Amino acid sequence: MQSVVLIGTGNVSHHLFEAFLDTSVQIIQVYGRNSTMLEKFGHRAKITTNIDEIIDADVYIVAVNDDAIKSISENLKHKYGLVVHTSGAISIAELKSKRKGVFYPLQSLTKDSKVDFSNNPICIEAGSDEDLKLLKKLALQVSNNVQEITSEQRKKLHLAAVFANNFTNHMFEIAQKLCESEKISFELLKPLIHETANKIRFLDPGQAQTGPAKRNDVLTMQRHLEELNDPMHKKIYQIISESIKRSREEKL
Amino acid sequence: MQSVVLIGTGNVSHHLFEAFLDTSVQIIQVYGRNSTMLEKFGHRAKITTNIDEIIDADVYIVAVNDDAIKSISENLKHKYGLVVHTSGAISIAELKSKRKGVFYPLQSLTKDSKVDFSNNPICIEAGSDEDLKLLKKLALQVSNNVQEITSEQRKKLHLAAVFANNFTNHMFEIAQKLCESEKISFELLKPLIHETANKIRFLDPGQAQTGPAKRNDVLTMQRHLEELNDPMHKKIYQIISESIKRSREEKL
Repeated sequence: MQSVVLIGTGNVSHHLFEAFLDTSVQIIQVYGRNSTMLEKFGHRAKITTNIDEIIDADVYIVAVNDDAIKSISENLKHKYGLVVHTSGAISIAELKSKRKGVFYPLQSLTKDSKVDFSNNPICIEAGSDEDLKLLKKLALQVSNNVQEITSEQRKKLHLAAVFANNFTNHMFEIAQKLCESEKISFELLKPLIHETANKIRFLDPGQAQTGPAKRNDVLTMQRHLEELNDPMHKKIYQIISESIKRSREEKL
Repeated sequence: MQSVVLIGTGNVSHHLFEAFLDTSVQIIQVYGRNSTMLEKFGHRAKITTNIDEIIDADVYIVAVNDDAIKSISENLKHKYGLVVHTSGAISIAELKSKRKGVFYPLQSLTKDSKVDFSNNPICIEAGSDEDLKLLKKLALQVSNNVQEITSEQRKKLHLAAVFANNFTNHMFEIAQKLCESEKISFELLKPLIHETANKIRFLDPGQAQTGPAKRNDVLTMQRHLEELNDPMHKKIYQIISESIKRSREEKL
């Protein structure tokens, strides 16, 4: 049985805590600075706001803001256990502990939304083969999709995820605003949104592309730009349409 | 039983033809200029490349490019049946027939991908109450989600669909390119993409938003911009991040 100390009380920590509950991994302690946030973990693990009171464990999962990873790992550098962070953007080299690794769940974790980790990739990396094995065993407890990824690849993957998730979600938000401006229910667009994600199961995004920019339908694009009142939305429309046209031309 | 003549041989026509096959609606003829495209319909309906040979029907569905709608409807103006177009962007007023309407399936139709219309909205509009009833009956044959929408609303909805579908799909394409540049499989991102679409079933896009722009994590955004080699992708990253930050500030 692996023992784990969770560092941090934010979204990632919260979801990992839940995910490990029904496994053979034991979360023996949670550390956080914010005692209100920390209390939520208190019914099933020890909790502490004092970093010097962190107990010994096989693995320390540092699920804190990117900026705090370095200093937290400084505090753990005399521990024997494996210290891993959960960030997509930070190199393994920023960890100051003796044994180090990365445990990056590639998923968008919001507090109000439950996550089934089982098919979500967990990207792992470690400073030694032995620790990689240990980490893989840990990750397989919550996911069937465990991937070895280098720090360089992870940086790019994290960036790609910003486009695929954050920016996509913002497109939904703009679409919602446009609907509301004409008192149309955003519900109307949901089947289209689901089909958009569904299509790329079996089509490349390049093949799945439709719309005025793909057809180079200049008249419709002009009409759309006139229809947009918000200068920021106009700019977004223009630059993405330009990029779609370029992709199309590259393929001709 | 309603009889329908389909005008046009593109994606919309193809998918509507398939969708009406198992219904009580009879597609009695398909018209198109391109005889190769037309042949595919020939095994189950009459076909013609001569617009003067279009036979009498209850409804004429004009599923052609936006630019061709006006002139096609000129050719149908002596018909007694109801003439409808399928475009999101064109007003009902552009139809030159006596009886007119709109039959707009709000879905992204690509040739290689089968569409189940049953839950997809079909947005209808007609010049008279009687024709609206007729059109509703027709639409209910293929979808449980039939919506009355004005031309003004439809224009906005079409624009919103460009953001929700076309632009979203392009975000996937950029993400794919970024993955490939580091030899990472795009498959890794697919669970995240499906979760992104799934989340808005029960969360508003504004609530579902995550990522560096939402957190105003300037350092990560800077690193991402350095990571992007393509100037067009840089511009897209900047403007969408700016727009996400603005949404966040509006909510504070």
